Amino acid sequence: MATVAILGCAGYTGQETLDRVLAHPQLELLALGSDSLAGKPPWALDPRLDAALPAFVCNDEAAASGADVVFLCFAADDAATFTPTECTVVVDLSGAHRLLDTAAARTWYGSAPGAWSYGLPELFTPAGLLIANPGCYATAALLALAPLAGRIESAVVDAKSGVSGAGRAPKATSHAGSVLENFLPYAVGEHRHAPEIAQQLGVPVCFVPHLLPVRRGLLATCYVQTDANVRELLEDVYATSAVVRVLPEGIAPELTRVQGTDAAELGVFTDRATGTAIVVCALDNLGKGAAGQAIQNANLALGLDETAGLRLHGVLV
Amino acid sequence: MATVAILGCAGYTGQETLDRVLAHPQLELLALGSDSLAGKPPWALDPRLDAALPAFVCNDEAAASGADVVFLCFAADDAATFTPTECTVVVDLSGAHRLLDTAAARTWYGSAPGAWSYGLPELFTPAGLLIANPGCYATAALLALAPLAGRIESAVVDAKSGVSGAGRAPKATSHAGSVLENFLPYAVGEHRHAPEIAQQLGVPVCFVPHLLPVRRGLLATCYVQTDANVRELLEDVYATSAVVRVLPEGIAPELTRVQGTDAAELGVFTDRATGTAIVVCALDNLGKGAAGQAIQNANLALGLDETAGLRLHGVLV
Amino acid sequence: MATVAILGCAGYTGQETLDRVLAHPQLELLALGSDSLAGKPPWALDPRLDAALPAFVCNDEAAASGADVVFLCFAADDAATFTPTECTVVVDLSGAHRLLDTAAARTWYGSAPGAWSYGLPELFTPAGLLIANPGCYATAALLALAPLAGRIESAVVDAKSGVSGAGRAPKATSHAGSVLENFLPYAVGEHRHAPEIAQQLGVPVCFVPHLLPVRRGLLATCYVQTDANVRELLEDVYATSAVVRVLPEGIAPELTRVQGTDAAELGVFTDRATGTAIVVCALDNLGKGAAGQAIQNANLALGLDETAGLRLHGVLV
Amino acid sequence: MATVAILGCAGYTGQETLDRVLAHPQLELLALGSDSLAGKPPWALDPRLDAALPAFVCNDEAAASGADVVFLCFAADDAATFTPTECTVVVDLSGAHRLLDTAAARTWYGSAPGAWSYGLPELFTPAGLLIANPGCYATAALLALAPLAGRIESAVVDAKSGVSGAGRAPKATSHAGSVLENFLPYAVGEHRHAPEIAQQLGVPVCFVPHLLPVRRGLLATCYVQTDANVRELLEDVYATSAVVRVLPEGIAPELTRVQGTDAAELGVFTDRATGTAIVVCALDNLGKGAAGQAIQNANLALGLDETAGLRLHGVLV
Repeated sequence: MATVAILGCAGYTGQETLDRVLAHPQLELLALGSDSLAGKPPWALDPRLDAALPAFVCNDEAAASGADVVFLCFAADDAATFTPTECTVVVDLSGAHRLLDTAAARTWYGSAPGAWSYGLPELFTPAGLLIANPGCYATAALLALAPLAGRIESAVVDAKSGVSGAGRAPKATSHAGSVLENFLPYAVGEHRHAPEIAQQLGVPVCFVPHLLPVRRGLLATCYVQTDANVRELLEDVYATSAVVRVLPEGIAPELTRVQGTDAAELGVFTDRATGTAIVVCALDNLGKGAAGQAIQNANLALGLDETAGLRLHGVLV
Repeated sequence: MATVAILGCAGYTGQETLDRVLAHPQLELLALGSDSLAGKPPWALDPRLDAALPAFVCNDEAAASGADVVFLCFAADDAATFTPTECTVVVDLSGAHRLLDTAAARTWYGSAPGAWSYGLPELFTPAGLLIANPGCYATAALLALAPLAGRIESAVVDAKSGVSGAGRAPKATSHAGSVLENFLPYAVGEHRHAPEIAQQLGVPVCFVPHLLPVRRGLLATCYVQTDANVRELLEDVYATSAVVRVLPEGIAPELTRVQGTDAAELGVFTDRATGTAIVVCALDNLGKGAAGQAIQNANLALGLDETAGLRLHGVLV
Repeated sequence: MATVAILGCAGYTGQETLDRVLAHPQLELLALGSDSLAGKPPWALDPRLDAALPAFVCNDEAAASGADVVFLCFAADDAATFTPTECTVVVDLSGAHRLLDTAAARTWYGSAPGAWSYGLPELFTPAGLLIANPGCYATAALLALAPLAGRIESAVVDAKSGVSGAGRAPKATSHAGSVLENFLPYAVGEHRHAPEIAQQLGVPVCFVPHLLPVRRGLLATCYVQTDANVRELLEDVYATSAVVRVLPEGIAPELTRVQGTDAAELGVFTDRATGTAIVVCALDNLGKGAAGQAIQNANLALGLDETAGLRLHGVLV
Repeated sequence: MATVAILGCAGYTGQETLDRVLAHPQLELLALGSDSLAGKPPWALDPRLDAALPAFVCNDEAAASGADVVFLCFAADDAATFTPTECTVVVDLSGAHRLLDTAAARTWYGSAPGAWSYGLPELFTPAGLLIANPGCYATAALLALAPLAGRIESAVVDAKSGVSGAGRAPKATSHAGSVLENFLPYAVGEHRHAPEIAQQLGVPVCFVPHLLPVRRGLLATCYVQTDANVRELLEDVYATSAVVRVLPEGIAPELTRVQGTDAAELGVFTDRATGTAIVVCALDNLGKGAAGQAIQNANLALGLDETAGLRLHGVLV
């Protein structure tokens, strides 16, 4: 059993990581870090949590717990200043260490890239102990488009995410009165997942995120000009994946089938009028877009079965 | 006072047209047509309706009522077989008469275009008595892009609509259990509003509609390559419009401000990475996307003030 | 024309009051008060607002504007400390002045009742210049039950409200991630609208509010034992009301028909097993439950037509 | 391994039962019955289903498959006419066999009770092979109130359910356009779960169900006059339950924590003004309210661990 510390456990990605760790047959929870909940019992976060779990400690104490794996579930600013201990696997769920170019990292995150490796297991195997977990939007866009790298010159990615993607801290923009029965684009043409997608794809991307009135789930509709056989390329790359499903012709991805899971769905279409290739990816922003992928990355770094602890089964309505 | 007959009044567009007619200072309701409600009092449709309104009659009877204006609130198949009476203004809210090319009309609607005029008042003034009211998606895409006609070679239109756009008849796809907390694209690359947009725009359009978990409202995010000054062109075209608002720089359209109204909002952006022009349009699919525009078209055909009877005021939360 | 100052205009009730004032034929907006928006143009609150309206000023300045009517759209704590000017009509939309008993007012609001009059026009006509506008839950419960006063000994009121009832300030409990696809009771058995209902009804009330995943709208299901003919009593009281509709037998109130309006719906039922009388009231918490009623109260105090400026028409889907 | 046939598998309760069976360590799927999907592969129902599962057959064929356990996931009318085979465990998820009194069964379901046993494992252990699975509303009300039987004389149960409770067949009342941003009571004072609750509780119940704009989840707020120590009684009954959680004082049940699970939550409160005991129960109408309980009942009938195959773990946001 490898031991685990979760830092920033009171946020959405922290709680979801905890969910996967508790179900993981080879991980053992050692420390629950949260500065806001330090000193409180686990059920202060959620009454479903067993009283026998370790109580919350402050993040510094959790970091010093000597765990084999540390999950950083902070905002990027806080993750940027975290100092890893030797011999510890660290998975950073924030954006702080995703951009590998120093200038880009400075511009978008005010941080330096350092020795972190970008881990999107189906496409970019993480190396070393320090792993930058991809953004939720970037994961969806890359699952859809990375297999076409070299065959496209640019892409339009129109993405839509549930509100949990914006984090648990109360903000005017995530107030239910602004979200319910509403829909809007934000950070139009200037969201920081755009350079992340472009970095891994090798071509520039026009990216527009939108806020859906749903709790969880993300769907990206990607438009590219290419002479590649898109369906064939995608089916090839994900043929043996337990995480990514390429749907049969004519079936479109939708949120319901991926919500609460760590799976992703891809649909492939061709526009009748323009011949544009349209690849649609649906995933759960807190699952494959965050905690699920973090566990996948940790599994690889620890030499465990890649999908151990993931939520991949079931056909809930 | 001009007299009005509404055919197909029990559907969503029928009820919304009725809503505008009742508030219109120069229109008088003469006949409420509905085959399913024929013989019933008006409040059988909605308890808010005054018992003093005319009772429902079957659509044929409403058509023969001698009204000055007939609103066809049918599905396209039924609207296609409607025979207009001389000297009557007819506004068809279905798609039956929107495509002007015979082959296209046959392919997409199984109907013949005939002598109908496409009426999108801000851009395409209707002529004659028979007016084809634009589709909700087409209205949004055209408000965003038509002012750029001649300056673009193609467009990607990624659109999202509330469920009322699919009509009131119960279907598996509009079951709340399939819509709530869900989001998905449909008719990907082959929706019949694509040829409608292309026809008015003069260039091919890659169009993908999506189903939002909201009751009403539609937002289209449009991507084009152009050397035009997009903001300037749009502000020019809509400078005096009481219906279409071009939002100040940095403000994005959203559903809440247009729901329950006949107004539309436009936002103009440039993508930082690719220079792509992004024009976003929000409107209410049942307002400017259907009943509101139908009233506008009828007003023009009758020589009335273009915005009489429209819902254009208020700042509801 | 009477002149109006709105204090706390940036909140939900403030914005909705502004909406009604702008549509009111006999009210003229003199001052827009908001400490957070002071110095900003009106469209800083909402891009739909005309640039020609007065700019925001701080609340103290708005209070000193000399307006004939002041709408207090504050939280109760702030409203409690407001000092009215002579000869000015003041409508307090908060709870600060609703409880007439000094001890109750202290307990629930930490405020003193003073010379304020409770104004629920259909049932309790306000007197004097200082009017306490009822709570949204209390309005619904009282519309349902007050006509039965003297014929009941107690009541169970199970109420459900949309999230705008909790105000615009971001809080953990109004975060969309906590509200969407969720439903829960809160302040169970100890909400401060309970003593307000009891005060006007004359009997104790067991009141439980719940949070609905909707933006606006409120429904109260009220259970009483009585030998009165409930339907007859209610139809009598509201026979001539333009605001309150008693629905025909067998039809239940629902949110859609009252959202965005200042109307209320009542449904009357008898339980088959126990004979319990069940009265259901639906209204918009921001309409009849707040801004609409505030305008009604101001109209009465100014001697205007009671329903001037209200949103009472239309049959939106 | 016991073998399983699911009849009516294409509906909501059928699909959810399938979900639990696939995860069950001691159940093996033998036949998937559905008249509408007969002849089609499993992924015709849901693309997540493994192609290696048995194809759909018509319900009669599934019934004759010789399975050890049959789950009837029909509407009540169809379940009423089902003839069980000897030596087979049959769990009927419809209401056809819940009412034990012949007259009541006739009145509410047009069916005869026969030799079926009511199975709500925590309270009423099923006996024999033929098990009537309780209604979702009845389950919630009984979990809240049955421990108080003998200490109460009647109850008010105000319940609210997500739309999946109404089944998958498209109807006007489950159209998303009628459900989204809406809320309403239905079958007020005359719903057929009322006699079911009363039958098990021994006292009459005033029951009003409401339709929530959520996909899944149900919450019942129960009001009783009693001199019992309600919290003590409930904590006692559920002390060792893995399914039912009595929440600590001051914490209210909510849908999010039970959605997609087979667990139930209870909250206990006392009204400050009237002393009324308020017990709130939250569960998933498709989980503990249907498929989860059906599996629990089958487990008991087969002598397996009661909670085998259930969804009881996790702390999803």
